[in-house]
Amino acid sequence: MDQGERLGRLARLAVEVGANVQPGQLVVVSGLVEHAALAREVARAAYRAGARLVAPRYSDRHFTRALVELGPEDSLSLTPAWDLTMLKALADEGGAFIMLSGEAEPSLLADLDETRVGRGQPRDYIAEWGRIVGARLVNWTIVPAPNPGWAEQVFGSPDVEPLWRAVEKAIRLDRPDPVEAWRSHIARLARIADALTERRFDSLQYQGPGTDFTVGLLPSGSWVCAKFQTGSGRSHVPNLPTEEVFTTPDRRRAEGRLSSTRPLQVGGTMVNNLAFEFREGRIVKVSASSGADVIRAQVAADGAAARLGEVALVDGSSEVGKLGLTFFNTLFDENSTCHAAYGSGFSFCIDDEGDREAGMNVSSVHTDFMVGGPEVEIDGIDRSGERVPILRGNEFQI
Amino acid sequence: MDQGERLGRLARLAVEVGANVQPGQLVVVSGLVEHAALAREVARAAYRAGARLVAPRYSDRHFTRALVELGPEDSLSLTPAWDLTMLKALADEGGAFIMLSGEAEPSLLADLDETRVGRGQPRDYIAEWGRIVGARLVNWTIVPAPNPGWAEQVFGSPDVEPLWRAVEKAIRLDRPDPVEAWRSHIARLARIADALTERRFDSLQYQGPGTDFTVGLLPSGSWVCAKFQTGSGRSHVPNLPTEEVFTTPDRRRAEGRLSSTRPLQVGGTMVNNLAFEFREGRIVKVSASSGADVIRAQVAADGAAARLGEVALVDGSSEVGKLGLTFFNTLFDENSTCHAAYGSGFSFCIDDEGDREAGMNVSSVHTDFMVGGPEVEIDGIDRSGERVPILRGNEFQI
Repeated sequence: MDQGERLGRLARLAVEVGANVQPGQLVVVSGLVEHAALAREVARAAYRAGARLVAPRYSDRHFTRALVELGPEDSLSLTPAWDLTMLKALADEGGAFIMLSGEAEPSLLADLDETRVGRGQPRDYIAEWGRIVGARLVNWTIVPAPNPGWAEQVFGSPDVEPLWRAVEKAIRLDRPDPVEAWRSHIARLARIADALTERRFDSLQYQGPGTDFTVGLLPSGSWVCAKFQTGSGRSHVPNLPTEEVFTTPDRRRAEGRLSSTRPLQVGGTMVNNLAFEFREGRIVKVSASSGADVIRAQVAADGAAARLGEVALVDGSSEVGKLGLTFFNTLFDENSTCHAAYGSGFSFCIDDEGDREAGMNVSSVHTDFMVGGPEVEIDGIDRSGERVPILRGNEFQI
Repeated sequence: MDQGERLGRLARLAVEVGANVQPGQLVVVSGLVEHAALAREVARAAYRAGARLVAPRYSDRHFTRALVELGPEDSLSLTPAWDLTMLKALADEGGAFIMLSGEAEPSLLADLDETRVGRGQPRDYIAEWGRIVGARLVNWTIVPAPNPGWAEQVFGSPDVEPLWRAVEKAIRLDRPDPVEAWRSHIARLARIADALTERRFDSLQYQGPGTDFTVGLLPSGSWVCAKFQTGSGRSHVPNLPTEEVFTTPDRRRAEGRLSSTRPLQVGGTMVNNLAFEFREGRIVKVSASSGADVIRAQVAADGAAARLGEVALVDGSSEVGKLGLTFFNTLFDENSTCHAAYGSGFSFCIDDEGDREAGMNVSSVHTDFMVGGPEVEIDGIDRSGERVPILRGNEFQI
């Protein structure tokens, strides 16, 4: 397939299935400068879908590098005022937001001070975006933007062809009718999420290599899959790919040791062999064979960053997991297997306001890390103490 | 010279001479995605000069193309709200703004409807930026960003080496001490501007091939060169290169025919053999061998776009003019020879408030076009009717 047609197909999936852009909408396309070829196709697809105005928002990791390397300490976590105006415009008029993902220079920040790298994130932007997601004001999606730097990280060569093929399989662009493939896939995830919600488990227990962990769930917590609906009734699929069902746990209850089963990419830094110890809901110890200080800085970013905001389950039927690759990209790796996130939770996962106030974590941080695979067993414990297997040998038991 | 060193030298000139970035300033670097290599060096140079935060603002002409080709008519001239917030942040805290110039795909919009291309400009952004420039709130500069597409347009080949050499000569980066070269060059321009201001001419008369034209000047109008000072006293050089002395004329008085002596690049469209007829201060006829409708759409953009906002004089000592090239870029071509601009004027060129209200043009448009060279004679007519030669054979007579 020629490169233009390939980009066009991915752009249409982002616009039609991912964000589900509606006639008359404001659309913002965000990505790295290196993603311009795909961003441009997304713009064209969005106008074809009837968008009123499509605006780019290009980021440049070299500006982040310059800030972390040369800028003043107080500026590391600043958000320019206009980035907040952009989010406010999307929220106020119910716009669409399409984010492109895929680091072009994955090791760009690797030689910098890890604590400064960890602080070098626009904190108000992340918090405001979290608020908008929670309030379901915008139909949004994150889609992959294959590029040579990312290909080299995954396959050891800058040739983008193998990465494109893997991405196309993961997001079902290899199917005869990708839109129909997404409809039936999402329907299956919704059935699993509904079954988990109906059980109203009090907690989840994880057992696996380096993992012995319990996390509390909230009485009115519900499990969702990544087909969302805005408050105004626009459905959208926030992540392409998506293979997860997830909920926001009780921020007060997390105990034990949780060892990540995949490498993690945070900003421009690789974090390997990451493990956490939890006491009374908080991360009290972070260890890793590389990148630990980036995680420690994030966990210390505010008073709530050390608590969990998300737990997510993924089984072996995952198209991402079946590829057997480490993508060094959370959008993919979190869909290859089960994961959790420290930092902010999702208000739409908790029905009762009292539960939300008492148990939902609110933070300027949200970072996913992977804990799953055939060796990790996950059980639900219901309110009577009964133990129900949820995942065994990478298959849902529910 | 290696490419990194070359970019670094240009970036330092932009930061130290052009914008004159001060410790603690907010700095915005705007350019095309294709300008990323230079933008990144500017960011590093700005932090080294003590900037508090340096943010990129990347534009993408392919988004403009998608809008003009596929977007709704009402959206063509929209400004996203966040772009105005960016300008407001710069104005409110007295930030620095560094703009990179140099089309990467000069013919990108050439096959589109010229009227829509002409309307396809963010009108509120241009107007607000004009207000900020007039009120001298920001230390800003525009500098060239050589790239293969621009090189191909000027030299017929995408090899950037000849373009880099020409640019370095034009902006005096070929001198042993570029900063000192700029100091003495600006001092000469200031002497010419002061001499013209002292004469208090009532009008200018232009005679040349296809040109027989008179434009009125305001009693309190002053001539300036492109060394500016913000209201808070920060000096800066808004254009690198700059070879001009200029003023804002009386919007009510312009008569006759003015024929452009250089090709003009507007957005992505080339305009050749452009000529205007003026009656009672207004452009009443636009002709061109290509691109006329882009100009006509701009001239019709609002009630004042058809009147003049700037007249500028450049003599044969211009380093740009001496190169004998058409750069297809206003930043260069306007500095190769005399020029004028229809659309908004500059309030800092008119000392008296009454003069300003009566005679200064205010519009959402400001487009420069070139009328100069050895064959164009320009005279000043003083209030007693005396005629004083200003330019003869491309040399200042004053």
